[in-house]
Amino acid sequence: MTAGPERLSINRASIRQWSVRELVEACAARSVGGVGLWRDDVEGVKAAAVGAQVRDAGLVVTSLCRGGFVTDPDPAERVRRHDDNRRALDEAAALGTDVLVFVAGGMAGSGTDLAGARARVVEAVAELVPDALARGVRVAVEPLHPMFCSDRCVISTLDQALDLADPFPVEAVGVVVDAYHVWWDPGVTAAIDRAGARIAAFQVCDWVTPLPEGVLTGRGLMGDGAIALPALRETVEAAGYTGPIEVEIFNDRWRGRPGDELLDLMVRRYRTHVLDETPDGPTQRSEAAWTARTTT
Amino acid sequence: MTAGPERLSINRASIRQWSVRELVEACAARSVGGVGLWRDDVEGVKAAAVGAQVRDAGLVVTSLCRGGFVTDPDPAERVRRHDDNRRALDEAAALGTDVLVFVAGGMAGSGTDLAGARARVVEAVAELVPDALARGVRVAVEPLHPMFCSDRCVISTLDQALDLADPFPVEAVGVVVDAYHVWWDPGVTAAIDRAGARIAAFQVCDWVTPLPEGVLTGRGLMGDGAIALPALRETVEAAGYTGPIEVEIFNDRWRGRPGDELLDLMVRRYRTHVLDETPDGPTQRSEAAWTARTTT
Repeated sequence: MTAGPERLSINRASIRQWSVRELVEACAARSVGGVGLWRDDVEGVKAAAVGAQVRDAGLVVTSLCRGGFVTDPDPAERVRRHDDNRRALDEAAALGTDVLVFVAGGMAGSGTDLAGARARVVEAVAELVPDALARGVRVAVEPLHPMFCSDRCVISTLDQALDLADPFPVEAVGVVVDAYHVWWDPGVTAAIDRAGARIAAFQVCDWVTPLPEGVLTGRGLMGDGAIALPALRETVEAAGYTGPIEVEIFNDRWRGRPGDELLDLMVRRYRTHVLDETPDGPTQRSEAAWTARTTT
Repeated sequence: MTAGPERLSINRASIRQWSVRELVEACAARSVGGVGLWRDDVEGVKAAAVGAQVRDAGLVVTSLCRGGFVTDPDPAERVRRHDDNRRALDEAAALGTDVLVFVAGGMAGSGTDLAGARARVVEAVAELVPDALARGVRVAVEPLHPMFCSDRCVISTLDQALDLADPFPVEAVGVVVDAYHVWWDPGVTAAIDRAGARIAAFQVCDWVTPLPEGVLTGRGLMGDGAIALPALRETVEAAGYTGPIEVEIFNDRWRGRPGDELLDLMVRRYRTHVLDETPDGPTQRSEAAWTARTTT
């Protein structure tokens, strides 16, 4: 596999203090290969123009976050969601990425009927398959950590995402392997092996505790937590995935830091704690001290 | 199955404003059949005397919380934990319960070596088996929700707990089915069926969001959340379990409420949202209003 930051992609949510333009320029200056964007990054502007801007800087758009939220049983809401997900596929195609990250949605409107909510996800994905094929964009189903099952995503394991994907062409429905969501799963190695060519994206960060209220913005920097990221990366590679490695960190504590400082740190930690290279910049000790200041 | 509160047990952590004596008397007055106790309830007093007090009131001790925390690789710490777990088995026997709830422990001292931490749990359980058999107390392995994997319990699913229990006699190693920890698991119905006679305890509460900081004290009252408790109870019963149903709720917001009010509410919610009886007391609407005041 390539060493250096060429495979690295920075998800826009990781450094929200920057505009897309600032992010792209800073990444290009460091040979970071890609960026992951969100739908609000193309709201009110032409997605194709944003895509061209990224490509002109020599980068690629590695994913668009996100489609999904298809669990509500209300028929009118289901139509609205389907239409919106088709628009998301359009935006991904216009941006020039073939990965639409798809988060199923929680139990909205489903009461305690988890099985029903999960069945509605299967239906909704099936309905999107023709659109995905027509646009050359994959619906990349992302299992979210089980702590999000009721409020964000009823697809809780990689195996469950693969069961969902199985009936559909691999170019229409893929899966996202996000270290934060799957690291705890005793079946994750077998599931990644099973996933093979279904793997549409690989995202990294780290698991740190205590979790904050609401648990959404507790993602840690690679190397600060419990996840054996090099082993997970090797498993993903052994399954045949050679695509981008995207850093996605939601952490409110970082909002006040300069973007350059965060990006440099992400690049270093990617090299030391994802690629498992020997540190060549600041020592681990000084990085740990920096992080303690930054994240606590 | 028996209707009414005879199968109901109240875990002491659910109403911590009461002493054991107050809890036992209040439960007896309502025909609640049992209580689940903690090790600090017998600290400095004779466990046998506490057990006699419970039995004299016509109740049973349904479980002792808890043994475990056996993931640390340090040899001296492992010896200390083993000795302490043997003492916990002694205390359970003296109390007159045959269920020692066993929480594996998180990744303490294990760095990112999750597989190693899990392997140490297997070793530690194996070492306890002769002691468990000698005392007639089961090591009841409790899988905890994956959000606790790094800091409390590396055993994250019921299937994983069963894999751990499989090599050992069913009277030595059982499992705990706690609705809060397992409800999200797409394989939970099959796992409960597989568990059969391994089920040593069944605990209930509900899953409510947003989770509080640290996520430990966010357990909700039955009926307030996302868990289909009657279906889960029926699955457990179909697997052959006819033992106590223990309410275990950690929720700091309740500390200031009168114990009688909480216990009455738990009994009602047990009947309406676990046994699935028609409400015969306050209407659902008024209970919801009460809960809104109480839990938010």
